[in-house]
Parts: sequence; structure tokens; C-alpha cells
Amino acid sequence: MNDIPTDQAIDTQAVRSYLLGLQNRIVSTLQAEDGKAFLSDGWTRPAGGALEGDGLSQLVEGGNLLERGGCNFSHVKGKALPPSATQHRPELAGAPFEAMGVSLVMHPLNPYVPTVHMNVRMLAAAPAGGATVTWFGGGMDLTPYYGFEDDAQHFHRVCRDAIGPALYARFKPWCDEYFFLKHRNEPRGVGGIFFDDFALPPEQGGHEAGFALMRATGDAFLEAYVPITQRRRGMPYGERERDFQAYRRGRYVEFNLVWDRGTHFGLHGGGRTESILMSMPPVVKWRYDWRPEPGTPEARLYTDFLRPREWASDRASDRASE
Amino acid sequence: MNDIPTDQAIDTQAVRSYLLGLQNRIVSTLQAEDGKAFLSDGWTRPAGGALEGDGLSQLVEGGNLLERGGCNFSHVKGKALPPSATQHRPELAGAPFEAMGVSLVMHPLNPYVPTVHMNVRMLAAAPAGGATVTWFGGGMDLTPYYGFEDDAQHFHRVCRDAIGPALYARFKPWCDEYFFLKHRNEPRGVGGIFFDDFALPPEQGGHEAGFALMRATGDAFLEAYVPITQRRRGMPYGERERDFQAYRRGRYVEFNLVWDRGTHFGLHGGGRTESILMSMPPVVKWRYDWRPEPGTPEARLYTDFLRPREWASDRASDRASE
Repeated sequence: MNDIPTDQAIDTQAVRSYLLGLQNRIVSTLQAEDGKAFLSDGWTRPAGGALEGDGLSQLVEGGNLLERGGCNFSHVKGKALPPSATQHRPELAGAPFEAMGVSLVMHPLNPYVPTVHMNVRMLAAAPAGGATVTWFGGGMDLTPYYGFEDDAQHFHRVCRDAIGPALYARFKPWCDEYFFLKHRNEPRGVGGIFFDDFALPPEQGGHEAGFALMRATGDAFLEAYVPITQRRRGMPYGERERDFQAYRRGRYVEFNLVWDRGTHFGLHGGGRTESILMSMPPVVKWRYDWRPEPGTPEARLYTDFLRPREWASDRASDRASE
Repeated sequence: MNDIPTDQAIDTQAVRSYLLGLQNRIVSTLQAEDGKAFLSDGWTRPAGGALEGDGLSQLVEGGNLLERGGCNFSHVKGKALPPSATQHRPELAGAPFEAMGVSLVMHPLNPYVPTVHMNVRMLAAAPAGGATVTWFGGGMDLTPYYGFEDDAQHFHRVCRDAIGPALYARFKPWCDEYFFLKHRNEPRGVGGIFFDDFALPPEQGGHEAGFALMRATGDAFLEAYVPITQRRRGMPYGERERDFQAYRRGRYVEFNLVWDRGTHFGLHGGGRTESILMSMPPVVKWRYDWRPEPGTPEARLYTDFLRPREWASDRASDRASE
């Protein structure tokens, strides 16, 4: 790969090492929880094109816990930042850059176990004659089929405790806003945290503060998700619950293919299709204008969970019935 | 609805009548073929907003021939053409307009029966002080799961005979180009015909020529598709074929949600979601980096059918083996 001139103060290799370690920890833990081994599929994009780089896709299909799930690491370098990335930072137009991240989506088999997504990423640009600058993005969000207040509260509280209440207060509503299906006027799930383009000036911590936020997010994932899987995976279910799960997974497909910027840019920009589409569920159903019967657990997903709520609040009064 | 000033020579009401009749003929025939009644769901968009209009969605789910299929009529009027529609025709910016069309997608139950899509549409704009102008678009394309040369040839020859060899020679490659999954480097199916923005000057027939092309396309649909369903629907199939069908339907979802302009603009622009997403298949599966075993019928779909071929040619030598 080309060597990108890097400010001495910024060590992108340390970010790469963190991300590979994070992927390894997550996959090892989920594999142990599942009991079925993940597959590993490494790839490289050779030097010479507009982008070069490498990645590692790790995935499981037909597992005991996970019907389909994947955790991707990727690291690409490019000779010139595309205009879409520099419209707010014209001084970086055409600068060499690198982008790296870990992204995962897990679709459990049992409809009582929610689907989860987590992503952390860094973009670094090295303008000629200037110092390297970095931005961070990421987050995680939970998509239940059958809602449990305990699960949503646990997930949000782990997120809040990981990044602190001040950032949580910014990134929780951002998540609600981002993971929203405008064509359905419906949130994707119960949310979590989301941030993008996060960069602080040096006097507020600069690169190191962004990297710390990335680590706080990534490191919190297993604590946020695994206990939920453990308490739901043994719940008995039947055809009705599987059918509702398959129907609701259609919303996941719609969001990712229609609205998600990462998926959209990846598929339009020549990303690795099979890695990008590891977010697709294993089995999905569509049916016309379907609505659950009022009063059923399926209806409660819509009325009690698919709307923004203060899940991390410790006030007992913050209930759906308010 | 508002009255839009219309050139005396252009009778958009005649186009509406044709489209409603076309929908009725298609649904009646497919219903008789299926044996299960279609549902009809009318809708109106009240005056006062940016768009007003009405439509009729007709659909079947769980039929004998069609596992899921819908045929939509819609007719909307707006006070001002959006900039995206007038970039090549600045003289029409802000003109009142109307858009109407019939669009269908049918997903058969039997994996040996191909999925089909057909659409015909008209856009009319009435600039202040100028004559009303109209453009037409449409086409139809066939998406087999198991390929049959007879079926592809029949479909293409009906298309060619309907619009004539000169237009077929333009609209067949346009279809190959349009219904292409760039992120898979793969055509959606065996194609057919596609045209957009079709308008001729008055000395070449003007509005009437465009309307005639719309009718030729719409009127050919049943002849192009029904005989194929009749000769394939009785073929025995099992879990293997259903599984491959569900996997390949994933490509249909990917194309429509990622690349199809009508779906994209509809979902982003406040169209009627349940009508737009009647194109989604009933059951879909995704699996990682799956490829068929060489030499199987599933592999032959990729090698012999998912590539542009001159299906309407009468030369016996025009074979996949060339």
C-alpha cells in the first residue's frame, strides 16, 4: 500500500489494531454463545485502483443462537478524498485518506431475541503540507420483534454508561433520527446511540478523544447485547412468532437498502457486496398492508416500542403508558 | 382536483381511460388464470398538498399461480414540476403537471414460472401560455429462476412484434442496461423492453405516437406472459427449487430498493408505500457468497440466461453456446 504521510501525533495503526482486536473479541464471544463456529473470509483490494485495502468478514449462518450474522473489519486507502466527503472541509479536497471500521449485524433465530447492529469507524485525511486529521463515527441500535422494557433499558443504560450522559444525550436522539423509516413513518427499533463526523479540536482532546469514544462504543457492545440474548433465547416460540419476525425483518431490509448511507455508498461505490449485504436477514417476508390485531404482543411492539422513549431514564414513571 | 389547462389536441382523459381498462383486463385475466380473487384497494390523495390524485391497487397473495402479485393504477397532479424533472427542459420549470400509469409485478409460486414486471406511464406538463407536452415511459421484463430459451424467445418476440423492430432495437438494449445490478455485475433477468422520456415532435406523431407506443406495450403484456405461465405452472418442484427461488428473489429486492428509480423516488417522495412495495416478493432468503454447483440448472441460469442475448432473433445459431 502507499504510505500516507501521517502526523506524528496520530497513529492510525493503533486504531487498526484496536479494531481487529475488537472484532476478534466480539466474534469469539458470540461464537461461544452460539456454539457454531463463524466462518472467516479475508479479502484484499490490490494497489493501483482508486481504492486499495483489506478486510476480514466473519459470519455465521444457521447457528443455534444466530440464524445469520456477520462482523466485518475493513481498511481502505485512497489517493484523493471524494468531493462528497469534503463539502464542509474544502481544504481537504483531493487529500489522500484512509477509512477503517468494524461493522456488525446479528439476526437471531429466536424471535424473542432482538436483532442488533454496531459500527465504529474512522476516517483520516492527510492534506499536502498539513497535519493529518481524523473523524470518528459509530453507534449501536437494537431492533426487537417482541419488545421487553428490561431489554431496551439495559441496552440504553450500557450505552449511556459507556460514553457518559453528556454524549448519550446527543447521540441517543441522533440514533432515533437516523434509524427511521421515513416511508413507513416508523423507527427501526428501540434505538441506542449514533454519531458521525465526530472530531474535536486539539485542546479538547483531538484525535485521542475521538479514538477513546470509538473504544468506549466498541467495548460496550458485548455487555449491551449478550445478556439480552441470554435471557431471551430459551423462550419457546412457534410459527406465529417466526412469521412476525420474518415480516418485521422486511423493515430491516427496507431501511438498509433504501436509507442507510453506508450501505448505499458501499453498493454504489464498488464496495464488497457480500460483506455489505451480510446485514440482510436470512429469511424475510412481505405482505400487503398488514397490521397486528390490537392488544396482541405484536401490536405492543408498535404502540410501546417503536417510538422514541427515554429508555435509560431511572425514573420509574417513564413508561409507555404516560 | 384542479383543472390543468390542456391543449385541445391532447386528451389526457383518454390515457386515463386506457390505463384503467388495461389494469382491468390484466387483473381479470390473471385472476382467472390463478383461481383466487385479487383484492382491490382504492386510495385518494386529497387536494391541497403538493400532489393530489387517486389510485387503485389490485393484488393477490397466496394464490394458486401467484404467491404475491400486484397491479397498480395511479394518477397524480401537481402544481409545479420538480427541478429533477425539468433539468433538460428549463422552459417547463414550475409548470403544472400530471402523471399516470399502470405498474405490475407478479411473483409466481412455482419456481419454474418466471417473475414479470410491466409498467406504462405518461407525464404531461402544461406551461403557462404554452401547449401541453407529454412524455411516455414503460416496458416489461422477465426474471426467470430456471431459464428456458423458449420462454425468453417468446417474451422478446411478443415485445418486438408489439412495438416493431426499429423501436425494439432501441428499447431491448435499454432494458438490459436499466435492469442491471451494478453491485452484482449481473442482469436482473432476461430483459425485455424499456423506454423513458419518449416524446416525438408533432410532425412525427407527437402525443398520439407516444400514446400508441404505450398502448402497444400494455396490450402486449398478457400475450407475452400468460402462455409462459401456462406451460410451466404444472412442473413439479421441491424444496431445492423453492430455496433457489427465494435466494434469487433477494436480487429482485436489491434491484428495486437500491437501483430502481421509480421505487426510489416513490419512497423518498412520499408515494404510497404499500403500493410501491407490492413489488417485493412474499418470501426471500439471503445467504453469504452462495454459488450454484457447476452444471446444475441453477448454474445454467447464470451462464446461459443472466447475460444479454438476442432473444428475439430467428437465427437458430444465436445460442448460448456461441
